[in-house]
Amino acid sequence: MEAYLDNSATTPLCPEAAGAMQEAIGRFWGNPSSLHRLGLEAERLLARCRADVAAGLHCSPAEVVFTSGGTEGNNLALFGAAASLGRRGRRIVTSAVEHSSIAESAAELQNRGFDVVYLGVDAQGRVSEQELQRLITKDTILVSLMAVNNEVGTVQPIDAVRRALRQTNAPALIHCDAVQAFGKLPVNPQRLGVDLLTVSSHKIHGPKGAGALFVRRGVRISPILYGGSQEQKLRPGTEAVPAIAGFAAAARAIPDLQQSLAYVTGLRDRLVQCLSATEGVKLNSPPDALPYLTNISLPGLQSETMVNFLSERGVYVSAGSACAKGKKSRVLHAMGLAEQDIAGALRISLSRFTTWEEIDAFLFALGEARVSLARK
Amino acid sequence: MEAYLDNSATTPLCPEAAGAMQEAIGRFWGNPSSLHRLGLEAERLLARCRADVAAGLHCSPAEVVFTSGGTEGNNLALFGAAASLGRRGRRIVTSAVEHSSIAESAAELQNRGFDVVYLGVDAQGRVSEQELQRLITKDTILVSLMAVNNEVGTVQPIDAVRRALRQTNAPALIHCDAVQAFGKLPVNPQRLGVDLLTVSSHKIHGPKGAGALFVRRGVRISPILYGGSQEQKLRPGTEAVPAIAGFAAAARAIPDLQQSLAYVTGLRDRLVQCLSATEGVKLNSPPDALPYLTNISLPGLQSETMVNFLSERGVYVSAGSACAKGKKSRVLHAMGLAEQDIAGALRISLSRFTTWEEIDAFLFALGEARVSLARK
Repeated sequence: MEAYLDNSATTPLCPEAAGAMQEAIGRFWGNPSSLHRLGLEAERLLARCRADVAAGLHCSPAEVVFTSGGTEGNNLALFGAAASLGRRGRRIVTSAVEHSSIAESAAELQNRGFDVVYLGVDAQGRVSEQELQRLITKDTILVSLMAVNNEVGTVQPIDAVRRALRQTNAPALIHCDAVQAFGKLPVNPQRLGVDLLTVSSHKIHGPKGAGALFVRRGVRISPILYGGSQEQKLRPGTEAVPAIAGFAAAARAIPDLQQSLAYVTGLRDRLVQCLSATEGVKLNSPPDALPYLTNISLPGLQSETMVNFLSERGVYVSAGSACAKGKKSRVLHAMGLAEQDIAGALRISLSRFTTWEEIDAFLFALGEARVSLARK
Repeated sequence: MEAYLDNSATTPLCPEAAGAMQEAIGRFWGNPSSLHRLGLEAERLLARCRADVAAGLHCSPAEVVFTSGGTEGNNLALFGAAASLGRRGRRIVTSAVEHSSIAESAAELQNRGFDVVYLGVDAQGRVSEQELQRLITKDTILVSLMAVNNEVGTVQPIDAVRRALRQTNAPALIHCDAVQAFGKLPVNPQRLGVDLLTVSSHKIHGPKGAGALFVRRGVRISPILYGGSQEQKLRPGTEAVPAIAGFAAAARAIPDLQQSLAYVTGLRDRLVQCLSATEGVKLNSPPDALPYLTNISLPGLQSETMVNFLSERGVYVSAGSACAKGKKSRVLHAMGLAEQDIAGALRISLSRFTTWEEIDAFLFALGEARVSLARK
């Protein structure tokens, strides 16, 4: 039996998403910008999709900008805010444990003369409210912090950012990369006090090639692409209707969050219990991490060797972020892990579709791996 | 019977593309960056797709960068070249009749201090080699010219750009927006002498949400998005595998170009013959336009009124570019058309799937329109 435990890298499509894509391809292939009936029908579908994603984010449809995915959403937030507010200040505050699409965009903004500062994290991977208050100066124009870390599952205190900002007169916008949180925890930009928030389709059992950036009403950011007037001119180009339809269907299909969380917590508890009883396995995720994500280290073994060994047995996990293929984890480094623990890290990521049998298959294969690989 | 004659706005999916998307969703949903078997299988599919698109462009797979579509491809070419060569010169040469994704990007580059100059066009919508030679100065870093105009079908003398460049010592890269040419005319970047070339999936019977930028081996441009190392770091973010699979299948399914061209020329000739015999109809496309595209004017009638009237009868045409919804045509203006001819312009765009019956349905409905609308 196979076990797919790499849901933080990508997820299989839910039947609702697959059906919606089918329908979009067959019936709604018109260009939403065309003025004739086929165009209007595609435009109406797009409006329904926007309402569905807005419902998932507890916001207004006018606050949803469709993008090609999480990376584009994060880039649009950072470059868009920097271009729009660059004359009012030069400081950008982010953390040392962000996804590469934030880290690399921030580095590029630094190249362009912005003053980018990074919040450190504790051994649990969490930023502190004190450091937030210290780093946010009155010329800060953007604070970007992820909701849930994509490698270890740490939940960041997003609401602390708004509190910290209130202490200053900074013109800063708050951006939250909620790619790993959406569909798993309640994501309500208004309650979180954020202005910009990124979500991605293929992390919630929708197709690759779609995502959205929430842009709070009244907030002005610059586009990064120029052309037609689609997406309120914030994201020109003919809309990726099939992917967006799949994304919206996946958002609509998200079941009761508490129920899924309870189920996945059960799976995670069994996983952690068995791992804790296994000699030499170190748990890198904090105890209060989002249960969908568990990061462990097997010191003395290389992540990649483990991933390959398990893959040959039909068990799919990862060494870290798929978008940081082959690189040593910045996240685990920032958390202060020893080099050998970083080199032997494994991420096991679950979904609401994960079964108890998959957890068992992983534990069994891990046992085999430890015996076989240690012997070599 | 219905008649879809708006193929320059978007095209229905060919069965091959629909099948490939189905397969990508069902079997190849892994993240191509994941190191396990599901990741490797998705990565291999992506490599096959790249080879298919490269075959269509007569280039090497390493020269194909997948994008989210034509607008992103054009933006990546312009901003990427400007960022990469901005220190060697400030002049950018383009034309007055480009797609909005070129026109708006060029305007933004002008805002950022580049010296953007525009080639005019003659009454046929064509730029002249003389003006090209005059406008390309030794500090020119980019020349961007479309292969086929998206509103009137004029074929531009792309190979003249390389000749004009040879007369100077300009460090310029040559970009060609070939969105309307791909799948209809031979598109061979090497033979055309271009460094960068944009194509789009949904104009060749593939899905919306995918496209490609050809980047000639050895040419360095900067990315516009930052993050993971996908697409040689020129276009980070998890690849839109379903859309790319559909795009590649559509590229593979392009039949013999000469045969399709002969068939579509037959359709166009009948269309133009009937229109020419109709009093008051003006032909805006040049006689040697790409036969897939015919632009006409019905002076005294408004484009939008016509589009709506025809749409109610199941006949779908457009007033101009879908990406310039509701705006007066820059292209027809640059060609020197009178205001009333611009206000009454219609674009009839064909594909290899267009039937004789569809042409007849259009002509019949147009006749009705002229009687009904003139009466009001």
